[in-house]
Amino acid sequence: MKVQLINNPTLEFVDSAVGACWGKGGYGADTDKGKERIERVCNKFRHASMLRFASYIFQVELSTSALLEWTRHQHADYAVKSTRYCTKQNPDDITVELSKNDLVNTMLTRHIEEIIELIKANPSLANDDLKLLLPQGFIYEMQVQFNAQSLQNFLALRTAKSAHYHIRDLAYEVFKQLPESHKYLFEDSLYSEELV
Amino acid sequence: MKVQLINNPTLEFVDSAVGACWGKGGYGADTDKGKERIERVCNKFRHASMLRFASYIFQVELSTSALLEWTRHQHADYAVKSTRYCTKQNPDDITVELSKNDLVNTMLTRHIEEIIELIKANPSLANDDLKLLLPQGFIYEMQVQFNAQSLQNFLALRTAKSAHYHIRDLAYEVFKQLPESHKYLFEDSLYSEELV
Amino acid sequence: MKVQLINNPTLEFVDSAVGACWGKGGYGADTDKGKERIERVCNKFRHASMLRFASYIFQVELSTSALLEWTRHQHADYAVKSTRYCTKQNPDDITVELSKNDLVNTMLTRHIEEIIELIKANPSLANDDLKLLLPQGFIYEMQVQFNAQSLQNFLALRTAKSAHYHIRDLAYEVFKQLPESHKYLFEDSLYSEELV
Amino acid sequence: MKVQLINNPTLEFVDSAVGACWGKGGYGADTDKGKERIERVCNKFRHASMLRFASYIFQVELSTSALLEWTRHQHADYAVKSTRYCTKQNPDDITVELSKNDLVNTMLTRHIEEIIELIKANPSLANDDLKLLLPQGFIYEMQVQFNAQSLQNFLALRTAKSAHYHIRDLAYEVFKQLPESHKYLFEDSLYSEELV
Repeated sequence: MKVQLINNPTLEFVDSAVGACWGKGGYGADTDKGKERIERVCNKFRHASMLRFASYIFQVELSTSALLEWTRHQHADYAVKSTRYCTKQNPDDITVELSKNDLVNTMLTRHIEEIIELIKANPSLANDDLKLLLPQGFIYEMQVQFNAQSLQNFLALRTAKSAHYHIRDLAYEVFKQLPESHKYLFEDSLYSEELV
Repeated sequence: MKVQLINNPTLEFVDSAVGACWGKGGYGADTDKGKERIERVCNKFRHASMLRFASYIFQVELSTSALLEWTRHQHADYAVKSTRYCTKQNPDDITVELSKNDLVNTMLTRHIEEIIELIKANPSLANDDLKLLLPQGFIYEMQVQFNAQSLQNFLALRTAKSAHYHIRDLAYEVFKQLPESHKYLFEDSLYSEELV
Repeated sequence: MKVQLINNPTLEFVDSAVGACWGKGGYGADTDKGKERIERVCNKFRHASMLRFASYIFQVELSTSALLEWTRHQHADYAVKSTRYCTKQNPDDITVELSKNDLVNTMLTRHIEEIIELIKANPSLANDDLKLLLPQGFIYEMQVQFNAQSLQNFLALRTAKSAHYHIRDLAYEVFKQLPESHKYLFEDSLYSEELV
Repeated sequence: MKVQLINNPTLEFVDSAVGACWGKGGYGADTDKGKERIERVCNKFRHASMLRFASYIFQVELSTSALLEWTRHQHADYAVKSTRYCTKQNPDDITVELSKNDLVNTMLTRHIEEIIELIKANPSLANDDLKLLLPQGFIYEMQVQFNAQSLQNFLALRTAKSAHYHIRDLAYEVFKQLPESHKYLFEDSLYSEELV
């Protein structure tokens, strides 16, 4: 599991967007006045679409299980490393995200080793066939982009106690990767015991 | 692999939508005049957004591999049977879509059998752990909804010769399931040797 | 101002979608058991995307002011009568939705009359020029489609006390047009004094 | 009519996205190798969703007529100066985009002057009433964000000969505002006589 923020996100155009609606222009996304206005308009007054003017791009390594859940978020953009092109190219790069159970992990590890051996012993096998063997613990790499509004939604749903532990860990890591000065916009989206 | 159309789609509101733009009302979606106008306006004149007024709902059984590709179509709606709730409930229902290679299939079948045995021998194992073992050949069930515009796009991309054979078979089956009187809208979206 | 539901919406595929996730199938959208499950899963447990399997199509007559606001809802589909094709065709069909102020209404009515006279006196004028005269009180006709999730959002934002009175009246009329047996899904979306 | 690019768009994350799919990483968005790969994968091979990793933010002044058309592009983000807050605040800022016809322009100019006079003579009039007088020639200000894929679509539809001249002029101006090194991605989207 790995999450890395790879762009340099700015709230500058959220600030100018909020200002544009009232004909007032930007206050400065780094000023208290600007930050308070963004919080008030976008979070309190539900004018959340202004948050779309901030974009966050991450590089992520995640289990197939987590990928299946993550890509169901339709307000995000995805570039996923294709198993149709890359499975047999570097068999030793085939890795797994383990479960929380030893019995399962033993089988998972063995299956992966068997797949790697199969590939090495049969270089002519096609990726389109081989990929069907990969278990949901198999780790994909992807580049993903959220805007601040869809990121709030992702965090709200995926930090919930009911979320699978793989995507839950990822969601908290996503939050940690955010610039400190942006976190105030997302804190209320995180799961809170008090809400239960 | 299974695809079944489960709603009773109509072009009636595409017809009335096209008519509404010109203040002319519907011609009747089943009349030659109505069908010709839909084809001309939506396909030839690129006013394709009118096609969104027709909805197609399918029940689908498909490999995890195909599910990963299918759900990347963001202009569709999905309800997918959750492996977090259903994996160990009926272990004998765990089935696979095979590859085109015998070596791969032998391993795939054996892995599935081992997973089923593990579940039966250890009833207390959690689905959230177990699911990480499921290979991409594992068959999911889902309900999916397209509008006619997004369905055209799905067919164009997934009947292409370059598509994985699982989703390619599914895409042709989706087309076959369409009402005969709707097929004329989608024929140009299908892969054609002549286009290569 | 006019709103008319023109399709025959069903919750049948919301019911089957909710059932599909747990591998349980539909309970019947008209049964208490089915309705209770939809309410619980979609509204209480925030699994609201299942609501996308129900579609509502309306014919609407609304002021340009309301159209500008309404079409900002991006999760809906629109077919709008084009002023580029229809303005001078039937000048006597040019009508306005009045404001709540007599002074404004007097000017609005006079401007509309002048536009109609201009059209009648100059039949060669082009719609693309003429349309620039039409005031925001001018009434458009459109066909619009929501799914149940986006309709909840529309009602929440547009029945709010802060909404412009034109679109607020429309939003309440949209709610009234819903089938009685569907209204339970949308009642919590309506503006409530108690929430203020 | 005014269009100004206000952010500093980069193709860096399109380049890395394309690379990620094949497990190859970025080639550099400014290198010939990188640019050629983006063009080939996104435009020729229809893998256009990778283009969503580039964002373009514009400040635009446009007629109400053009705003009505522009905001129908649902894959863009909008912040529009609200006539509900700003109409009477600065009556002298109320301006129009003229038509191509003198008769129409004479009436348009007169109507606007009457509206401004009404506002000045009646300071207590409410914006929610007053705004209904504003003609489609009235100029709005907005901030709009496209990704590169949706921008291609906007240019294709709005530079077409059949587009209204206001939005057609805007679409060409949008293209002109793009960084020179990005234009190669959009040239095929522009209207071409040869395609007719």
